[in-house]
Amino acid sequence: MSTTQTAQLMDGTHLAKRIVEEAAVKAAEISHRTGSSPCLATVLVGEDPASVTYVRMKRARCAKAGIRSRHIALPAATTTAELIDTLSDLSVDPDVHGILLQHPCGPHIDERAAFEAIAPEKDVDGVTMHSFAALSFALPGFVSCTPGGIMRLLEAYDVDLAGKHAVVVGRSAILGKPAGMLLLAKDATVTYCHSRTTDLSAIVREADVVVAAVGRPRLIRGEDIKPGAVVIDAGYNPGNVGDVDYDTALTRARLITPVPGGVGPMTIAVLLAQTVEAAAKQLGMQRR
Amino acid sequence: MSTTQTAQLMDGTHLAKRIVEEAAVKAAEISHRTGSSPCLATVLVGEDPASVTYVRMKRARCAKAGIRSRHIALPAATTTAELIDTLSDLSVDPDVHGILLQHPCGPHIDERAAFEAIAPEKDVDGVTMHSFAALSFALPGFVSCTPGGIMRLLEAYDVDLAGKHAVVVGRSAILGKPAGMLLLAKDATVTYCHSRTTDLSAIVREADVVVAAVGRPRLIRGEDIKPGAVVIDAGYNPGNVGDVDYDTALTRARLITPVPGGVGPMTIAVLLAQTVEAAAKQLGMQRR
Repeated sequence: MSTTQTAQLMDGTHLAKRIVEEAAVKAAEISHRTGSSPCLATVLVGEDPASVTYVRMKRARCAKAGIRSRHIALPAATTTAELIDTLSDLSVDPDVHGILLQHPCGPHIDERAAFEAIAPEKDVDGVTMHSFAALSFALPGFVSCTPGGIMRLLEAYDVDLAGKHAVVVGRSAILGKPAGMLLLAKDATVTYCHSRTTDLSAIVREADVVVAAVGRPRLIRGEDIKPGAVVIDAGYNPGNVGDVDYDTALTRARLITPVPGGVGPMTIAVLLAQTVEAAAKQLGMQRR
Repeated sequence: MSTTQTAQLMDGTHLAKRIVEEAAVKAAEISHRTGSSPCLATVLVGEDPASVTYVRMKRARCAKAGIRSRHIALPAATTTAELIDTLSDLSVDPDVHGILLQHPCGPHIDERAAFEAIAPEKDVDGVTMHSFAALSFALPGFVSCTPGGIMRLLEAYDVDLAGKHAVVVGRSAILGKPAGMLLLAKDATVTYCHSRTTDLSAIVREADVVVAAVGRPRLIRGEDIKPGAVVIDAGYNPGNVGDVDYDTALTRARLITPVPGGVGPMTIAVLLAQTVEAAAKQLGMQRR
């Protein structure tokens, strides 16, 4: 096996920075023109350390970009009904433009019911049923942030998707499913693989674009990557290991996202960009 | 080329009849227990002859099954806003349990906006964004009728989908996209093909289940059908021609839907079944 790198890295860190900078410019313009700055409400149930960290990171990025955030920390014992009340209030609060419900919320919460309490025009995290259907039907709306980040990476690196075979490994509601629908909207032929797929290797070998989104370390074998393929690794596993066997994939792919520094940074960038976009619309700055 | 038939026909006419009979029994039970019979509102804009025929046929089937229908014929010049008003009124009318907007409505109507005026709990035709997202996320809700009919056919003929490769040719909002999502929910590996797919033959040749849903006569070549595959032809073309080259496919498939008499009759059957289900829920007969 050759270990010569052939792939160009898709630099998510750099692209995310650019997107955040653009969002910051736009946020400043909104503040200047309307006297009101974009505001993201972050809602957290309980005190799971990882979730606390994620929310803190998102709020810090907001602050840097001139986006206000309003944090609502709810006790771990919060019921679904109480959470829905909070989200419904934020949905009609004119001073809040985007809403992020940090999840998972814990097993006692009906997360779907909670998501659905978020008004579609404030669903900057792209978690509602409305947002999923909108992106599936190529209608205006916010997209789930990680798939949105993947699409921006593909665009930034001029990957032409029309007629290409894109294989999405994973079928979650916020990652695999919307990623496939977004690729389909760009005229890719799209295959969804998952834990029940019987011959993953054979299907990956046919892929012009692979989107790995399962969270199983090195599930995608490097030697299955078609020479010249584009590899997007959205998997998060302990130890900065992706879902793709990176070292081998690197010798075969044309473009590949590193882990970390690939898809990861894009998620927050899209969240910020969508928050600013939501604020612009709600404050009457533009129509989409 | 051998012309020996090997495939068993999937008898949609027979299955549809059974489903309608079950719906009729349920409708009678609802009438008996609640004093109110299920009611489907049919809304038609203009007088397109094919649409007039379709609506008449649907209403006749309703009548036979003990389902009332209330027909609203709107002039061809009806605006989107007026159509939305009509559908919104029906959505809150307690005497209407299901709503069918016959479509296409004509180029001057924003059909998506009209569909979205249908309350999800009355969307027995499965056309709303909510219904699509619900079926995509395996949540309770009504399904688009033709994909729903396809799934019932597959179930009736004991087709085990888990781990099988299902290829959906077509990506419309009411047929291809929901069909793929329903197959994915049954653990199939799902590939969406469409007009921009570059090597349709090669992909079809790998399919354990083919769902043809494009409306292009004999687009799917019979010799591409994998021996033993299941072939669902949801294509409607003039002259009772499906999207699959039937004669050749018949010699290779294990199961195949004839055209007509395959998927066709299932669509109305699912519409009736879902109308009765909606009525049962709204009249307090059951919870899903």
